[in-house]
Amino acid sequence: MSTLKTILPNARVQPRFAGISTFCRFPTIEETDRFTAPLDWAIFGAPFDSGVTYRPGGRFGPRAVREESQYVKPYHIEHRLMLTEVLSMVDAGDAPVQPFNCEENAASVAEFAGSLGDAGHTKAFMVGGDHSNTLGNMRATWGRVGKPVGGLALIHFDSHVDTVDVTLGEKHSHASPFIRAVEEGVLDPKRMLSIGVKGPLNTPDDLKYAEDHGVTLVTYEDWKYRDGVERIAAFMRELGGQEAYLTFDIDCVDPAFAPGTGTPSLGGFSSAEALHLLRGLPEASGGAGPNIVGADVVEVLPDRDHAGITALLAAHVMFEILCLDGVRRVRESAGG
Amino acid sequence: MSTLKTILPNARVQPRFAGISTFCRFPTIEETDRFTAPLDWAIFGAPFDSGVTYRPGGRFGPRAVREESQYVKPYHIEHRLMLTEVLSMVDAGDAPVQPFNCEENAASVAEFAGSLGDAGHTKAFMVGGDHSNTLGNMRATWGRVGKPVGGLALIHFDSHVDTVDVTLGEKHSHASPFIRAVEEGVLDPKRMLSIGVKGPLNTPDDLKYAEDHGVTLVTYEDWKYRDGVERIAAFMRELGGQEAYLTFDIDCVDPAFAPGTGTPSLGGFSSAEALHLLRGLPEASGGAGPNIVGADVVEVLPDRDHAGITALLAAHVMFEILCLDGVRRVRESAGG
Amino acid sequence: MSTLKTILPNARVQPRFAGISTFCRFPTIEETDRFTAPLDWAIFGAPFDSGVTYRPGGRFGPRAVREESQYVKPYHIEHRLMLTEVLSMVDAGDAPVQPFNCEENAASVAEFAGSLGDAGHTKAFMVGGDHSNTLGNMRATWGRVGKPVGGLALIHFDSHVDTVDVTLGEKHSHASPFIRAVEEGVLDPKRMLSIGVKGPLNTPDDLKYAEDHGVTLVTYEDWKYRDGVERIAAFMRELGGQEAYLTFDIDCVDPAFAPGTGTPSLGGFSSAEALHLLRGLPEASGGAGPNIVGADVVEVLPDRDHAGITALLAAHVMFEILCLDGVRRVRESAGG
Amino acid sequence: MSTLKTILPNARVQPRFAGISTFCRFPTIEETDRFTAPLDWAIFGAPFDSGVTYRPGGRFGPRAVREESQYVKPYHIEHRLMLTEVLSMVDAGDAPVQPFNCEENAASVAEFAGSLGDAGHTKAFMVGGDHSNTLGNMRATWGRVGKPVGGLALIHFDSHVDTVDVTLGEKHSHASPFIRAVEEGVLDPKRMLSIGVKGPLNTPDDLKYAEDHGVTLVTYEDWKYRDGVERIAAFMRELGGQEAYLTFDIDCVDPAFAPGTGTPSLGGFSSAEALHLLRGLPEASGGAGPNIVGADVVEVLPDRDHAGITALLAAHVMFEILCLDGVRRVRESAGG
Amino acid sequence: MSTLKTILPNARVQPRFAGISTFCRFPTIEETDRFTAPLDWAIFGAPFDSGVTYRPGGRFGPRAVREESQYVKPYHIEHRLMLTEVLSMVDAGDAPVQPFNCEENAASVAEFAGSLGDAGHTKAFMVGGDHSNTLGNMRATWGRVGKPVGGLALIHFDSHVDTVDVTLGEKHSHASPFIRAVEEGVLDPKRMLSIGVKGPLNTPDDLKYAEDHGVTLVTYEDWKYRDGVERIAAFMRELGGQEAYLTFDIDCVDPAFAPGTGTPSLGGFSSAEALHLLRGLPEASGGAGPNIVGADVVEVLPDRDHAGITALLAAHVMFEILCLDGVRRVRESAGG
Amino acid sequence: MSTLKTILPNARVQPRFAGISTFCRFPTIEETDRFTAPLDWAIFGAPFDSGVTYRPGGRFGPRAVREESQYVKPYHIEHRLMLTEVLSMVDAGDAPVQPFNCEENAASVAEFAGSLGDAGHTKAFMVGGDHSNTLGNMRATWGRVGKPVGGLALIHFDSHVDTVDVTLGEKHSHASPFIRAVEEGVLDPKRMLSIGVKGPLNTPDDLKYAEDHGVTLVTYEDWKYRDGVERIAAFMRELGGQEAYLTFDIDCVDPAFAPGTGTPSLGGFSSAEALHLLRGLPEASGGAGPNIVGADVVEVLPDRDHAGITALLAAHVMFEILCLDGVRRVRESAGG
Repeated sequence: MSTLKTILPNARVQPRFAGISTFCRFPTIEETDRFTAPLDWAIFGAPFDSGVTYRPGGRFGPRAVREESQYVKPYHIEHRLMLTEVLSMVDAGDAPVQPFNCEENAASVAEFAGSLGDAGHTKAFMVGGDHSNTLGNMRATWGRVGKPVGGLALIHFDSHVDTVDVTLGEKHSHASPFIRAVEEGVLDPKRMLSIGVKGPLNTPDDLKYAEDHGVTLVTYEDWKYRDGVERIAAFMRELGGQEAYLTFDIDCVDPAFAPGTGTPSLGGFSSAEALHLLRGLPEASGGAGPNIVGADVVEVLPDRDHAGITALLAAHVMFEILCLDGVRRVRESAGG
Repeated sequence: MSTLKTILPNARVQPRFAGISTFCRFPTIEETDRFTAPLDWAIFGAPFDSGVTYRPGGRFGPRAVREESQYVKPYHIEHRLMLTEVLSMVDAGDAPVQPFNCEENAASVAEFAGSLGDAGHTKAFMVGGDHSNTLGNMRATWGRVGKPVGGLALIHFDSHVDTVDVTLGEKHSHASPFIRAVEEGVLDPKRMLSIGVKGPLNTPDDLKYAEDHGVTLVTYEDWKYRDGVERIAAFMRELGGQEAYLTFDIDCVDPAFAPGTGTPSLGGFSSAEALHLLRGLPEASGGAGPNIVGADVVEVLPDRDHAGITALLAAHVMFEILCLDGVRRVRESAGG
Repeated sequence: MSTLKTILPNARVQPRFAGISTFCRFPTIEETDRFTAPLDWAIFGAPFDSGVTYRPGGRFGPRAVREESQYVKPYHIEHRLMLTEVLSMVDAGDAPVQPFNCEENAASVAEFAGSLGDAGHTKAFMVGGDHSNTLGNMRATWGRVGKPVGGLALIHFDSHVDTVDVTLGEKHSHASPFIRAVEEGVLDPKRMLSIGVKGPLNTPDDLKYAEDHGVTLVTYEDWKYRDGVERIAAFMRELGGQEAYLTFDIDCVDPAFAPGTGTPSLGGFSSAEALHLLRGLPEASGGAGPNIVGADVVEVLPDRDHAGITALLAAHVMFEILCLDGVRRVRESAGG
Repeated sequence: MSTLKTILPNARVQPRFAGISTFCRFPTIEETDRFTAPLDWAIFGAPFDSGVTYRPGGRFGPRAVREESQYVKPYHIEHRLMLTEVLSMVDAGDAPVQPFNCEENAASVAEFAGSLGDAGHTKAFMVGGDHSNTLGNMRATWGRVGKPVGGLALIHFDSHVDTVDVTLGEKHSHASPFIRAVEEGVLDPKRMLSIGVKGPLNTPDDLKYAEDHGVTLVTYEDWKYRDGVERIAAFMRELGGQEAYLTFDIDCVDPAFAPGTGTPSLGGFSSAEALHLLRGLPEASGGAGPNIVGADVVEVLPDRDHAGITALLAAHVMFEILCLDGVRRVRESAGG
Repeated sequence: MSTLKTILPNARVQPRFAGISTFCRFPTIEETDRFTAPLDWAIFGAPFDSGVTYRPGGRFGPRAVREESQYVKPYHIEHRLMLTEVLSMVDAGDAPVQPFNCEENAASVAEFAGSLGDAGHTKAFMVGGDHSNTLGNMRATWGRVGKPVGGLALIHFDSHVDTVDVTLGEKHSHASPFIRAVEEGVLDPKRMLSIGVKGPLNTPDDLKYAEDHGVTLVTYEDWKYRDGVERIAAFMRELGGQEAYLTFDIDCVDPAFAPGTGTPSLGGFSSAEALHLLRGLPEASGGAGPNIVGADVVEVLPDRDHAGITALLAAHVMFEILCLDGVRRVRESAGG
Repeated sequence: MSTLKTILPNARVQPRFAGISTFCRFPTIEETDRFTAPLDWAIFGAPFDSGVTYRPGGRFGPRAVREESQYVKPYHIEHRLMLTEVLSMVDAGDAPVQPFNCEENAASVAEFAGSLGDAGHTKAFMVGGDHSNTLGNMRATWGRVGKPVGGLALIHFDSHVDTVDVTLGEKHSHASPFIRAVEEGVLDPKRMLSIGVKGPLNTPDDLKYAEDHGVTLVTYEDWKYRDGVERIAAFMRELGGQEAYLTFDIDCVDPAFAPGTGTPSLGGFSSAEALHLLRGLPEASGGAGPNIVGADVVEVLPDRDHAGITALLAAHVMFEILCLDGVRRVRESAGG
């Protein structure tokens, strides 16, 4: 574990309702003097939503998450971890999106995400925007870890499997990031775990894709009432310390908790269940937890939100994921 | 199992945000050329809410459900059932309501519901509107199955028992459909199951009515923490393949998931719990599941909804109930 | 004047809150038996919003306008005109949009709009969707009237001039329909009148375009405090009975009256002012009023609306525009 | 002018956000010790909305007006009048409504309104609820002033004329109060002034009724652009000090200012225009202003409101109307 | 058990949407003739929110709870208890708050709460406002029971421990009521139970305070997944019949169920869980349940609420807590 | 006129929905390399609302204005002015507020505002927060211009006069900034112009204060219907080029246009009227317009806003005020 830390404004002196809003009140990337060592995580927004098949508006997701994340505090009560003392994190601004073309946008996000911080050390966390942006950050992450043959592992929270080949005539959309990532070699479907899938489908094709390609698919009902917990644990143990990307589509959480999303699917996780699941990944893994080398939270649509609860949830999901990296570093450091 | 099916617009060609909104994108009844055989289900709206005792506005429920149901897809992920391939379904428009008189309205709904499709084959699914409309569709359903002496069985999801004799001086209101149906011989109280009852009552009269008439009453707390699951299963096994009506008052779901309703009752089902309960009825019955010959979802009040989540839930409840009929047909066909 | 009329449901028998929602309760195009002669106007939706430069969501505009237009009644109190007795009108459904490509979408809208009704007689009214769709309906309208050299005249209500050459790298967007239409010969800029322009601009380029090409540009302040009324009247008199397209971007109305729009511009028309302006066009023209051969209302974004007031306004704007055609026919008939 | 006054909580000591909400913070009728002389005005709610033809919910209007009226202060800046020093006013609670029957409800409201305070002195101000309640308060008012043959005069602000004979099969609804009042002799149509009528109509019947019965009808456009101001002044001068009822349907104000209403009509008064019109009645009358012997504000529907602006407007309209009585008393007192 | 009862308006005659809104339709304190014996509970509002560290607006909480509590009925379905027959309860209005000073406000609330009813008999239930008001009601409660040395026991539902010493330079705020109460001797930290603590913290200081002072702290995850249920039961058994104060910060419930609050914390109780926990306290105690001598529900912020669900929840929490006192009286009466 | 300018992101390349939100997309104060000369205007937030007497929440005003101001473009269509080419402007972040004390807060704001940029050159524009913050920025402004004896002139847009001596026991609140500023010598009441005053008052004290101290007070009705326009022009001509502070309380605009405010007052300016009034100040002055040396826009309360229209209006008011300085510089430069 490094000795780096993130210096936040003291919320008991400067209130959380004051100041220009950055992700979790992290410094912006220009404020380099707040850091005493190379950066661990660069958080950036991907304000692109032209890949949606239903309701757009997620381009305003990064701004909403910045606003609501002002109320994210740094100490994790269950992990007993002061995140800002173990990781250096910044708000790196937004990627230069291409609102009229999904494919160009993914390329633009990939280039931007790849350029942040120290390529060999820094990790990129993306706040969407729709799920098509994930292809960009996954490509950049894959590049950061040396483009391993076989691709990255993927821990995927979502109501949808997002492996549709063509939607409304297009091969790049928020329904297709993972089929494209598999084709490009960026993602290894055999080490892909989709958690929380639910709701009616257009066709059973997604299920067939998972079966044909070895994707581990755990529906919400599998997790709640069947063997889902065990299958997740088995996946995590097998995954061990291999490099993994974590993507969290907010629509895996039930619309009561996350109304602000574009393709809502009913009957899913409560916030408490989703946070518990994330917090439990280290224990599920039987070790220090997954080795997350890139991550995102996507599909926040502020115009359908109320009281900011969806954006606030996205901000806490970001916090939980960063804490997973913090926990791993603390445990590895303690173990070393 | 018949070979009928419902032809939907292809959502991967014609987007779900396009077109005049009908229930679940089903054809309207005029589009007779989309069918190759007699109709299985006619879905209709009952835009009447003058029977409420608290907050009106449910007359706009059918429209809201039509809108949000555009995002209901046809393949059931847990039943592994393509609904549109086993059932023919249409949007039959709205019943001619009588907004100034509950009793006349129930008669009008009954007449309309009784006129839809092939009386000996077609079933009617009603989208409310308040719960007083249910008396109308139950009467029509009872007529469709030959007015059996003793009345229909009833699977009733609700926070309230709705067997109040007189409310604010009237015998017909959304508090009274089942006491009236029992009096008319349309409903057999001994085969009535009320699930999800909760919240404070004006008096214990409803409980006494249930006890006196043999209604099986399972409160939310009974189901969650006591013997409710077992009692439901016992009811379903005893019910077997007898003709049953299923009525789903959206207020049995907690207001966090269904804020858009007029007499909200706290501390109830999550969407996931409610959907799981519906999906589990076949297993609970120990056979092909209940033989639903008429159904409804009622008490959706759009002006109190947000992000359409209540209407979306109602649309999915409709889908789940139709799938119960689909599952039964598939199993009986396989069994035969 | 023909003897055609549109038969609506009788709102004093069938309430306005009942039935599947079509534009203004007009019959759908399949219900051909409701007409006794060829169709005057086909109303259609263009649920496409991928051309926006700021806030998307207008793809849900046509549905919202259908819903709120249920409360549009047929008799115009100022014109003393029963619209449905002088014009035959239908809801023709939605155009097949191309959500991933503005240019392809405009082509698709043009083809659909061109196919409606009797090409030599029927006129097409489009409900957007963003302003890029207008290029499609203008092309179709131009075709309907025989592709006159020099192009159509245009009466254009908007906060923005929409003659930007390239936006975010693209030549087709909601900022560019009229520069493209001029280039294609569909629109004659010398007979283009832009009313209600207001708000800060990125650059003075739009003003320069208008000046260079002879566009008559009347800002809101021109109309309210300077010579705008007179300039509009002069334009209308000169226009006379020439074929004109009328496009109404809802953002020309102040956001207090039309909050549900994507690029809101402050300090504009009240609803009363906008409706008065439309109603006054016949008088301004000094004759029977403009000869509108195609029209649209665009940029309604329901997720930012409240109480449906923006969609309701759009529905009334549609009604006013159709009444302009009705008034012209009555006057010409009387005059003939 | 009497020396009565209304003692309010001191808002600079007890804040306006504290306390049980009564209309304008007036005492309730039980708190009789706050008065030193008989009561001038009894304000009461009529939480009945079953008379509507479109969107219900106005039964919650009285509560919303009570809430928002907490911010109504007692000194009128234009009249230079401290209202509470010239009038004694109380919140008399709500009338016992009959939610299942319009006709019975009107009778119940009439009885309640007739029972308040000193019949020969006290006047009743009603807060609706829908416009059908007005028939009740008009009857009570007519009784208070001795049931004069020929009926009361009426100053009527509304988008609709509300003289429809039968709606959806019923003779009593919010579309019919004035035709019924005329039939009963309670209202003299020749001394009825309808201000602010606008929007499309189902038929021209309302206009014909006005013409046939001598109703003075001033549309919004008449008032804004034609001779409406003069016609109102002529009416007021002729009316002089005769007993008049004033009814204010909040939908005469444009939905931007009053979104919370059930049958919204576009293109009407701004709040400023409506308040200015009310304030100007004394000047228009050429004397002390109208002699208002009963009044109401109706059709506030809180579930469609936002930020409480419609209910706040209703509260201010109530204040303006009460000030008209205050101004008249001051002027008559000064004149005497 | 006394024979007192509270006479409510009959909701089957006078509808729940009628009348001036008091807490749960209880009589106001002036209506002394509705009581036949001394008062058991005085409910009052504390419309003060200047103690917040994030989002203000809770000053409007009491009014919102009054409104939504109109739909609270008197019979508890699980306890089989008609609350109004065992307890006399009134709405005592609002405390005179001091909006510009937390410390003065707490003193003012204490004085007001101490003055209500019969000091030796009556108990005070407060509806906030922010959590800093609790110091006032706790002081008054401590006084009512004779200022026992060692202080009161406390059953505390909250996401936050609220034992921060100084916040933004102040010792009195909504983050500090319990550290101040301990210092004053009003509260015994060894008999303090905090249930539902969750979410990120600024620092681990709160945890340290609990540990150092013997506070029993049960996080949401402790309760859901670890030994929390057992620890609560142990606390309740040990507490037995000692005088206890119960404070319920609505933010212990997940924001999906309680969006209307100022410092929302994700991943908490559902409404059903919270109500079940309250209902289960008698059973957890192994006897008649806790002896609650004062109570509150705080931190309701209406401007962030939707459909009133947060205020409705607060009203039901109030009902559940009062029922705990009712259950205890019935059981003690039966036991005696 | 200097040759300074503000370099914005190019909105036709980097969309307005991308990036960390600063006021009008201006650079933050750290990004000093974007400037080629000393700063003209520093924009800062004052997220303090503890001075309110009714509804709090304005502390979130600066953030909301930052968000909505992303859609403010730099070219003024009526002035024909490219603002960013004539002024250098930055977002200087938020002042360190003191949420528990109005008086300390005003001092803190004054200190912060006084420290920005080059004291002899830079001007400070404040975004509130409540109106009590204005005392702070006025003091700083007075200091910047050398503390002239007699104080600053003031152009004051507001519904309220804000010269109340004591409110709820306090001398510092949002009702009192100008009485305090007069007492301190910061403000010259004889050169104070209050525009748009309206609505009921607690007492006529404010009017008396204005009369006694020589404040020019123009009510909304004065401006609309009497001699207000002339009196404003007379004031502006007399003011000439003297140093003036401009404060804009958003509640001077009608709540239909500015619902998001805490003490809403009905019947005021439309957005169009308010913007027209601001734009017309140069013409009213008969010269280059007022010499504004400090300014603010206050009382934006986002939780009552919808669709961001109030914050968007505040952002445009800021733009208009900055343009007044731009126009003055251009005219003086041209004149020189």
